[in-house]
Amino acid sequence: MKRFRVPGFSFSSVWCGIKKSRKRDLALIYADKPAAASAVFTTNRVKAAPVVLGQERIRKGLCQAVLINSGHANAMTGTDGKRAAKETALMLTKALNIKPSVAIPSSTGLIGGKFPSGKIKKAVPRLVEKLSADGAEEVARAIMTTDAFPKISLRSVKTGGRSGTVLAIGKGAGMVCPNMATMLCFVLTDVNAPKTLLDKTLRAAVDGSFNRIIVDGDMSTNDSVFLLSSGALANGTFSAASADGKRFTKAVEEVCSDIAEMIVADGEGATKVVRIEVEGAKTATDAEKAARAVGTSVLVKTAFYGQDPNFGRVAAAVGRSGAGFNPDKMDIFIDRLKVMSRGMEISGVEKKAAKIMKKSAFTVRIKLSGGKAKAFVLSSDLSPEYVRINSEYRT
Amino acid sequence: MKRFRVPGFSFSSVWCGIKKSRKRDLALIYADKPAAASAVFTTNRVKAAPVVLGQERIRKGLCQAVLINSGHANAMTGTDGKRAAKETALMLTKALNIKPSVAIPSSTGLIGGKFPSGKIKKAVPRLVEKLSADGAEEVARAIMTTDAFPKISLRSVKTGGRSGTVLAIGKGAGMVCPNMATMLCFVLTDVNAPKTLLDKTLRAAVDGSFNRIIVDGDMSTNDSVFLLSSGALANGTFSAASADGKRFTKAVEEVCSDIAEMIVADGEGATKVVRIEVEGAKTATDAEKAARAVGTSVLVKTAFYGQDPNFGRVAAAVGRSGAGFNPDKMDIFIDRLKVMSRGMEISGVEKKAAKIMKKSAFTVRIKLSGGKAKAFVLSSDLSPEYVRINSEYRT
Repeated sequence: MKRFRVPGFSFSSVWCGIKKSRKRDLALIYADKPAAASAVFTTNRVKAAPVVLGQERIRKGLCQAVLINSGHANAMTGTDGKRAAKETALMLTKALNIKPSVAIPSSTGLIGGKFPSGKIKKAVPRLVEKLSADGAEEVARAIMTTDAFPKISLRSVKTGGRSGTVLAIGKGAGMVCPNMATMLCFVLTDVNAPKTLLDKTLRAAVDGSFNRIIVDGDMSTNDSVFLLSSGALANGTFSAASADGKRFTKAVEEVCSDIAEMIVADGEGATKVVRIEVEGAKTATDAEKAARAVGTSVLVKTAFYGQDPNFGRVAAAVGRSGAGFNPDKMDIFIDRLKVMSRGMEISGVEKKAAKIMKKSAFTVRIKLSGGKAKAFVLSSDLSPEYVRINSEYRT
Repeated sequence: MKRFRVPGFSFSSVWCGIKKSRKRDLALIYADKPAAASAVFTTNRVKAAPVVLGQERIRKGLCQAVLINSGHANAMTGTDGKRAAKETALMLTKALNIKPSVAIPSSTGLIGGKFPSGKIKKAVPRLVEKLSADGAEEVARAIMTTDAFPKISLRSVKTGGRSGTVLAIGKGAGMVCPNMATMLCFVLTDVNAPKTLLDKTLRAAVDGSFNRIIVDGDMSTNDSVFLLSSGALANGTFSAASADGKRFTKAVEEVCSDIAEMIVADGEGATKVVRIEVEGAKTATDAEKAARAVGTSVLVKTAFYGQDPNFGRVAAAVGRSGAGFNPDKMDIFIDRLKVMSRGMEISGVEKKAAKIMKKSAFTVRIKLSGGKAKAFVLSSDLSPEYVRINSEYRT
């Protein structure tokens, strides 16, 4: 078994009684010393209690412990929920003998209902006792909700001549998203990097990965991505532009992309991962709008599921996206097969296109020939199974 | 049988060979004299050939004949399609002995493929021969594609002491929308009204009806709404602000709303019509954004289908809508039952809420308590059946 260790961090997970399945539902990520920390949270105006508290605490740029529970989102729980988030974090800091301000709670699961802070607090001593350098994979399992598999990714990265580590532990199930597809990701590294670089790196990595995945267009109340650096590698400082900086940035981007792709691929309801690429747009905003309109179109996604080469739906989605372009210059490709040329469907390629669509992953490329800007998103198909799962979630 | 007559107009429909079912697929609406005309077309940048031609011809404010085919959208058919649209309209004007500029083609059906102009041109003489004052209902049937029932609505309206008529013939199937839910609507009246009033009335009516219905968020390449006035009532002129003007405007709005509601209710895949109301928003734009985000949310729509009182999904959709509001002041109601108060789920009302959701129509009202602006949309649920129908359309 590959060992997912990151010097300076230890891990723990237990079943505290939230999940009826008796699977683990409480996890702890702990740094020996307060880690340099950065985070990106949901932009949804309706934020879960732990997100509100996390936003406040991360401002100081330090985090030593993250307490994650699955099974309850602590969202739309009002002042009670906010108090509960604080109390569970406080209980943890007492057990670990660390400052309250460096502990951050994180939750994923059902929205509404009373937050089970009693169960969590009761389990904290056991959780702390079990801390170990080797528990990262168990943490990945413990934070799962409707995920079909645990999500973890690791990269080695040369920094100052030493071999550092970047590890990402994530959760989120593409098509099966009872909590508005809540995604959590914890990126941990032993590379010593300044806070400003962590902020910049994380923001770019999130923009190129989690912000590119489209499942149902709904953004969760709980979405959070953390980057914590223990600095245990004891490398010298470096700038973003240096070779070390570039390698570090690339490693963070790669683990985030890995987790993002796993999220899209996960879920009983998803049968395909489809990359939507737009190129030749006048502006980056236009490219972005067009790619997102195609990636979120329910009609496009059902056509993907049916392996139906109905590229009229793709073209029409670009048309209503708000992007400025000339429809008579638009070409559309599926993988390397051209299916639309200058706004006209190409006849006789349907069978070939349908064959490509049978694959579990393919690319739809839209060439607007109106400029140089480009953008991509990762989307999936929409199956009857998706509707069934999401309509039956609580009933 | 109720007779759907409008003085000054006659109707005709035939099977010209596009629909394999041998059901009628070609229709004609004809005015004795060029009618004062206004139209609203799709804002999709990818427009079908007849839409491009219609936009050009309607500018003069006159229309005497509308030639409507179902089964083929004449969209993404390039210059061939544009030529075909012109040719079929020209053929019709010759048969009717009217000026080419007052004939407008309209198409709905599959996107792409060669437009069957030969079949249409061949059927034109028969079509013209069959013109009758009583053919409106047959026109409503002939323009159906995946519609489960024909859509027609009539209002009488007192104008200058006389009894005028406003008739709407529409098509569009809410959940079953192979052509990006193409909707067509032809509003016909004998009331003599100035062109500027027709423009203003139609725009307001469309904004309050067709622009409020959300099926899958995709806008068709062919969507068109026409308002034609024969003036056969020979009433005197009136202003929009007069009692006559108000009654006329109201009648046009009502027939448009009728057709819009029929479109949402139609389709094997839809089991419910849900009205989403947002009130207390800071600005009209905020209210609009919030209502649309809820109405288009795949997760909200699957919860409607499952009759699952998961109002966290509604709140989260408002949260990501881009509307400015304070989540701690948000209340949510289903019909008259309060299910969320000041951003917190109310416990103990789930069963009552689930019971309301069993109905085929209900209202979700979101109170933001941040201002006075409001907006509404009509949405439907999302069923596995919808996905099945839309994924199997062409295969």
